[in-house]
Amino acid sequence: MAHSPIKSPLAESDKEITGNALQATLVDLVDLSLIAKQAHWNVVGANFRSAHLQLDELVATARQYTDAVAERANAIGISPNGKAKTVVESSGIPEYPDNWQSVESTITGVVAALEALIERLRKRIDETDKSDLVTQDLLIEITQELEKAHWMWQAQQA
Amino acid sequence: MAHSPIKSPLAESDKEITGNALQATLVDLVDLSLIAKQAHWNVVGANFRSAHLQLDELVATARQYTDAVAERANAIGISPNGKAKTVVESSGIPEYPDNWQSVESTITGVVAALEALIERLRKRIDETDKSDLVTQDLLIEITQELEKAHWMWQAQQA
Amino acid sequence: MAHSPIKSPLAESDKEITGNALQATLVDLVDLSLIAKQAHWNVVGANFRSAHLQLDELVATARQYTDAVAERANAIGISPNGKAKTVVESSGIPEYPDNWQSVESTITGVVAALEALIERLRKRIDETDKSDLVTQDLLIEITQELEKAHWMWQAQQA
Amino acid sequence: MAHSPIKSPLAESDKEITGNALQATLVDLVDLSLIAKQAHWNVVGANFRSAHLQLDELVATARQYTDAVAERANAIGISPNGKAKTVVESSGIPEYPDNWQSVESTITGVVAALEALIERLRKRIDETDKSDLVTQDLLIEITQELEKAHWMWQAQQA
Amino acid sequence: MAHSPIKSPLAESDKEITGNALQATLVDLVDLSLIAKQAHWNVVGANFRSAHLQLDELVATARQYTDAVAERANAIGISPNGKAKTVVESSGIPEYPDNWQSVESTITGVVAALEALIERLRKRIDETDKSDLVTQDLLIEITQELEKAHWMWQAQQA
Amino acid sequence: MAHSPIKSPLAESDKEITGNALQATLVDLVDLSLIAKQAHWNVVGANFRSAHLQLDELVATARQYTDAVAERANAIGISPNGKAKTVVESSGIPEYPDNWQSVESTITGVVAALEALIERLRKRIDETDKSDLVTQDLLIEITQELEKAHWMWQAQQA
Amino acid sequence: MAHSPIKSPLAESDKEITGNALQATLVDLVDLSLIAKQAHWNVVGANFRSAHLQLDELVATARQYTDAVAERANAIGISPNGKAKTVVESSGIPEYPDNWQSVESTITGVVAALEALIERLRKRIDETDKSDLVTQDLLIEITQELEKAHWMWQAQQA
Amino acid sequence: MAHSPIKSPLAESDKEITGNALQATLVDLVDLSLIAKQAHWNVVGANFRSAHLQLDELVATARQYTDAVAERANAIGISPNGKAKTVVESSGIPEYPDNWQSVESTITGVVAALEALIERLRKRIDETDKSDLVTQDLLIEITQELEKAHWMWQAQQA
Amino acid sequence: MAHSPIKSPLAESDKEITGNALQATLVDLVDLSLIAKQAHWNVVGANFRSAHLQLDELVATARQYTDAVAERANAIGISPNGKAKTVVESSGIPEYPDNWQSVESTITGVVAALEALIERLRKRIDETDKSDLVTQDLLIEITQELEKAHWMWQAQQA
Amino acid sequence: MAHSPIKSPLAESDKEITGNALQATLVDLVDLSLIAKQAHWNVVGANFRSAHLQLDELVATARQYTDAVAERANAIGISPNGKAKTVVESSGIPEYPDNWQSVESTITGVVAALEALIERLRKRIDETDKSDLVTQDLLIEITQELEKAHWMWQAQQA
Amino acid sequence: MAHSPIKSPLAESDKEITGNALQATLVDLVDLSLIAKQAHWNVVGANFRSAHLQLDELVATARQYTDAVAERANAIGISPNGKAKTVVESSGIPEYPDNWQSVESTITGVVAALEALIERLRKRIDETDKSDLVTQDLLIEITQELEKAHWMWQAQQA
Amino acid sequence: MAHSPIKSPLAESDKEITGNALQATLVDLVDLSLIAKQAHWNVVGANFRSAHLQLDELVATARQYTDAVAERANAIGISPNGKAKTVVESSGIPEYPDNWQSVESTITGVVAALEALIERLRKRIDETDKSDLVTQDLLIEITQELEKAHWMWQAQQA
Repeated sequence: MAHSPIKSPLAESDKEITGNALQATLVDLVDLSLIAKQAHWNVVGANFRSAHLQLDELVATARQYTDAVAERANAIGISPNGKAKTVVESSGIPEYPDNWQSVESTITGVVAALEALIERLRKRIDETDKSDLVTQDLLIEITQELEKAHWMWQAQQA
Repeated sequence: MAHSPIKSPLAESDKEITGNALQATLVDLVDLSLIAKQAHWNVVGANFRSAHLQLDELVATARQYTDAVAERANAIGISPNGKAKTVVESSGIPEYPDNWQSVESTITGVVAALEALIERLRKRIDETDKSDLVTQDLLIEITQELEKAHWMWQAQQA
Repeated sequence: MAHSPIKSPLAESDKEITGNALQATLVDLVDLSLIAKQAHWNVVGANFRSAHLQLDELVATARQYTDAVAERANAIGISPNGKAKTVVESSGIPEYPDNWQSVESTITGVVAALEALIERLRKRIDETDKSDLVTQDLLIEITQELEKAHWMWQAQQA
Repeated sequence: MAHSPIKSPLAESDKEITGNALQATLVDLVDLSLIAKQAHWNVVGANFRSAHLQLDELVATARQYTDAVAERANAIGISPNGKAKTVVESSGIPEYPDNWQSVESTITGVVAALEALIERLRKRIDETDKSDLVTQDLLIEITQELEKAHWMWQAQQA
Repeated sequence: MAHSPIKSPLAESDKEITGNALQATLVDLVDLSLIAKQAHWNVVGANFRSAHLQLDELVATARQYTDAVAERANAIGISPNGKAKTVVESSGIPEYPDNWQSVESTITGVVAALEALIERLRKRIDETDKSDLVTQDLLIEITQELEKAHWMWQAQQA
Repeated sequence: MAHSPIKSPLAESDKEITGNALQATLVDLVDLSLIAKQAHWNVVGANFRSAHLQLDELVATARQYTDAVAERANAIGISPNGKAKTVVESSGIPEYPDNWQSVESTITGVVAALEALIERLRKRIDETDKSDLVTQDLLIEITQELEKAHWMWQAQQA
Repeated sequence: MAHSPIKSPLAESDKEITGNALQATLVDLVDLSLIAKQAHWNVVGANFRSAHLQLDELVATARQYTDAVAERANAIGISPNGKAKTVVESSGIPEYPDNWQSVESTITGVVAALEALIERLRKRIDETDKSDLVTQDLLIEITQELEKAHWMWQAQQA
Repeated sequence: MAHSPIKSPLAESDKEITGNALQATLVDLVDLSLIAKQAHWNVVGANFRSAHLQLDELVATARQYTDAVAERANAIGISPNGKAKTVVESSGIPEYPDNWQSVESTITGVVAALEALIERLRKRIDETDKSDLVTQDLLIEITQELEKAHWMWQAQQA
Repeated sequence: MAHSPIKSPLAESDKEITGNALQATLVDLVDLSLIAKQAHWNVVGANFRSAHLQLDELVATARQYTDAVAERANAIGISPNGKAKTVVESSGIPEYPDNWQSVESTITGVVAALEALIERLRKRIDETDKSDLVTQDLLIEITQELEKAHWMWQAQQA
Repeated sequence: MAHSPIKSPLAESDKEITGNALQATLVDLVDLSLIAKQAHWNVVGANFRSAHLQLDELVATARQYTDAVAERANAIGISPNGKAKTVVESSGIPEYPDNWQSVESTITGVVAALEALIERLRKRIDETDKSDLVTQDLLIEITQELEKAHWMWQAQQA
Repeated sequence: MAHSPIKSPLAESDKEITGNALQATLVDLVDLSLIAKQAHWNVVGANFRSAHLQLDELVATARQYTDAVAERANAIGISPNGKAKTVVESSGIPEYPDNWQSVESTITGVVAALEALIERLRKRIDETDKSDLVTQDLLIEITQELEKAHWMWQAQQA
Repeated sequence: MAHSPIKSPLAESDKEITGNALQATLVDLVDLSLIAKQAHWNVVGANFRSAHLQLDELVATARQYTDAVAERANAIGISPNGKAKTVVESSGIPEYPDNWQSVESTITGVVAALEALIERLRKRIDETDKSDLVTQDLLIEITQELEKAHWMWQAQQA
């Protein structure tokens, strides 16, 4: 489809800035959902069950905001792209190890993923301050949820 | 983790055959879930809403069996791998187009994805007939659900 | 519609064997659902209420599998036919008497219906063993439920 | 059972008129439920999913009133008969075609079935005006639901 | 309170006729709810449990319509009276025996109570035909439910 | 759309009488829903919360029957019209005051609205007695609910 | 039924004391449920709705313990009697006035009913201390609920 | 009521700006809820059912935010006004056509209504940036929901 | 584990008396749950279904209190023991017959089991009166439920 | 309010003893709910999530009984006082440390709090044995729940 | 624990400003929850029940945000402190009177508490505008809810 | 009862082989449910709560399949036997230790129980391959669930 079938409520330059922020966030969140599932399946060790369950909550959070972000992209006239190939090419989350992982290693990997994602989100909150307050509000909400998750995963390292 | 922390109920060669079937199915299903979401977000046209809703049911089906397959891999002592990179490298589902798609094009893409996946699953049902009846039973159940979905998507092309 | 709009995952001869088994099962189950409702409305006697309720559970079971069988027929490219006329012409369940029936007579009729249906299903499980394992799995599940019901109705004759 | 085990609250002639109206309505509704299921399984085409779902709502409506009508027959001392053979012999609904049907053909068939059924129900509302107000009230309620369904199916032909 | 605080939508004579019908129905239904509870607590014998449960459904029906009738009385400007003393003085339901009762004796008592109540209700349906169609409609609905219960209790005597 | 896409089950003159009754009822009920919401937001004083909650129940009742009436209009081949302009032009409910209102003033306004609406509904019950019993039945049900509400609001003035 | 079909776990004299306490409590609670419903239907005045709702909670409490007390009577081999006539002859709750009542008058009546009932219950708690601790425990639970209700109704008189 | 009974947390000029924004939004949303219902009842054509359902979701969204906006107006000491007359006089949504509408015409009307409403809301987000951040946050949330709906309705025009 | 890891709130002798009562009750209740399941599976005869369902309620009751009793044992510093071997060695419930049983024989067996259990529980209520009121309260609650079940099973022998 | 608006069912001296027990328990439970929340927010370490969740269950238990105790105080004519200042002045629970705490330190703090509270409750059970059996029963129930919690927290120290 | 185990996403000075705002809000909200409970238990007078219920909704609101604020403090690396002693030392809410209070006095106290809390929250919204937009967003949401509650309590003073 | 009241759908020799497999599985599963409860009550140590909860899920799984296996035995005409004595005499699960157990010891015991049970089940899957495919399907399903549990318990030993 050569041009957007959706009329944007934003001016062209605001739409570009906002669209970039949303597409990048979409990719990060799809990757987070895959990594958290990978960790959910591969965690082993004495605290296995607690981490196993907590990881599924993180998957749910990631999936929920993936939808919200893709819908917002559509609402401003941008086609969202969350395919595996796009995720491999542009995700900002550090790679997660293969094979079974101990609970400690799992926590380390999840905390690193969240830290990278939060840092990128805070930049996008700044970038969208002028381009679209509605999108900014959504990014703020996502950041709040991920920073809460960040605390809960860090708390286990204390 | 150098060796499996999970003791397999299967003999070594059965474990290998069964494990390959499960890992390949896992990757196919993760890819299906991402493609169905991509289609869900990017479909446009007169029947938009109906296809949009039906795609989310397909996402739910794919995700449900992704979990079942990964759990089964663990149960036979195989570490499941569903990361984005693994999906890009080994999925057997044809590539899905970027950007917004008409309802017709969306249906074509979904039918093609399901057809490829079903064909591969039927081969694995044969392969696991000797190696592990429990895994075979799971693959039969998945095939039944996907063939039902296959009918429902084809029915729209009539 | 002259030819099937649904592409079958089965080879032609497997499709024919499997399709016949499914169509015959569909008709038997539709008939069972009508007979069980007829019995539900016409039972009288001291144990009326218990039989009245149990018959509605049998109706629910019959209806649930009617849908599963018809969907499976579609999935292999066969048009299912569950119209009243088709039921009269091809059902394998013995005729159920008109008018009110005592609880004992009702139980006798239901046990006979289940016995006939189970015998036919077990044959179809054998027939589909080579033609389609997915359909066979569905027929096994139906048989398990109906044999359970068969026990519960027989138990009242002891 | 030679004579009715249920004492009727109606005089003999009122019971006969009312009983005929109920038995005829029962047969029509059982047939409607079978036709709507047949249509549900065999509809194909671009609008497949929407019609597929709407047909199941019609099945649910038909089944619900089948029970209400049969219970009412019992309440006035008449044995209800809803067996397949009885349906074939006395239903007033035009025959529905075999095999897969396009959405348009499906809608045509359903609208015709509803139209025939509503016309017959309105006559029975008149007939029961003197014989039993309680039964008339039930027939009025059924007519209201079916005329609402009639609108919704016709609306798609506009 | 000397005069009615509720302004009636009915003319004075219609209000009197309708009010009498409602007050008499209220008393009958309160009595039915007490008798059905009494029977629920005192039934013994081989079919104890089935009758015990069915009686509680009758209590629920009686209580539901007690409320509907009292509310309707208020709506037409009549104060409803459902106190124990009023019930003893004006109920039209035959007395129910003291002490434990066999299942058969219980059924006989319940059938007799329902028969008396239905006969009285059918008279009130006639009486309110001119005075208030809204009230008549409520009485028809109650009659339908009680005649259904009447069938279900009689069916056990067959 | 020049002519009705919905075939009416009624003769032309019956359709006109019934259609007028339904359209007028639709407008009255939409207005009632808006007035009850207005009152819900603007009531103040010692009994604020209780009235605030009761008003939302009235809104729910009004909205529920608005749908039922509009659907019935469609079912007899009449296009329902519930737009704000139509309400302003043809509602039969007296005007409700602007700004915050005391609980007493709120009750007065609601009782007046219900009284006007009930009086009009009772006339339409008479008018539809010959034209369409199905519509009459719906109007009787609405009247029953509104007269019940009328009592509950009047009860607070005692 | 001449003698009890239920074997009591209590000695004969304990059974008599306990049985009297339970039968008297049953009658009081049935009467409370009827009085609270009477009040529920007949309350009028500024606070109508709040009292109307609170009375239905009292009805629910009374009905719940009516069942518990009757079941306990059966469990110790005593036939419970909760018929209208028995209530009129032996209830210990003061008579409640006929006709509509103001909120104040309603509260006065309910507080008086609860006060009488609580006083009688506390005596029965003492009486059953030696005869049956299980019954005593039930009476304590009922007293706790009724004293809580007593506070909530008194609080409105402050 | 001459002056506001609610003490505002805002300074007088902020209150006026914010109050105007809220009152105008309230009117727009009430109108949207009525127009969406009108469309819900009057849509006809091949895709009837899907549009019919989607319109009721839009009604639900509009009603939910109508309440939130009216409550916010009260919270800052402004009496909200959502009466039919006020809607006719001050709504900013273009008029919606009378009579049945095709699915295409319905979509056009809904997209136009949403576009007008979104444009007005974005202005009010700017206006309240200085006057009240709390109200601004609510307007942002409403805009996000309506822009999402806007996408979903536009997607059907592609 | 040589000594208790749980500090008891009771003095040593009270702990011993209470602990014995709890351990004995635990064993009795585990046995009751196994016997009731055995009966649930093996009952046959005309009243099969009613007894079959009622037995599962008894299983649920037994299991619920098994947990409560084991938790209470822990709370006072006693390790609960509910293994099959312990049950065989110390249960106070008479042996239940092997193979299918008629409804009458089933009722006889259940009544005997309950009678033995209640008698033992009443002794433990006395024993714990001085040692631990909290445990006594739990035993009273269990006795109340089992005596209620005792009535319901005996009622069927009348 | 100089004197109690609630008439007590107890004699004056019983009321004083019982009132003191209830007020002291109220304060202890409010403090427990605050300490458990404090611990819930500040726990860190490898078992963080399990302790975090278990603490919220303790908060729920504490809050539930806080209400029951305050309501009971009212029921006997005593004004309950659960303000922060009252808690600081009269709680019997040892102080809980500030700042983040390890899981071990958290468990130690919670076990100490429960131990102190249980000891105080057992004294009040003795004190109310003569003054009010109804209150005693409530205190027994609270003690049962807290001793169960005490076991579950101690079990983690083993 | 000497230093924070949680890595803050904020710079040190932003963390301090934001942390102070959150800790102060936490204390205010804990105090509000205790005061609202105190009022819930001690309100008396004609409108008792309505105020009693509304106060519990306020408790629920306060508790919900207490959790959100404490979690946010953790997320930015600040240990939250909500102990009774901390509340007494630093809450900004005016003291609430002891003993039973009339409905009017209760409303006055609650309005005063909300007014103080809202004023303090609006200052913190300003303070966090530069330090942390995520925290500011949470404070805005809390303010919206409390200003809504403020209206509902003031409305009763009109 | 000397001979089976249930007519088997299997030939005599198939019935014997299948019946032995089912009876042996029944005993193993009853024993598993008792052992898992024993472990649930007696586990202590730092990970207490997680293991405590996970054990109750294992109890639920064991109980669910106990019912399925016993019902299947009945369906093929075999009387199931799950009494304590039978369990002690024929269970294939190794004995579980008395008294409190550490989390590690608990896990060891559960893994050993599951390993023994799975090995026996896999043999029975082979044995029933010729005798009854319906029973084999049930055994495959049970094995899948238990092997999944086996992984989750082993994962904690890594």
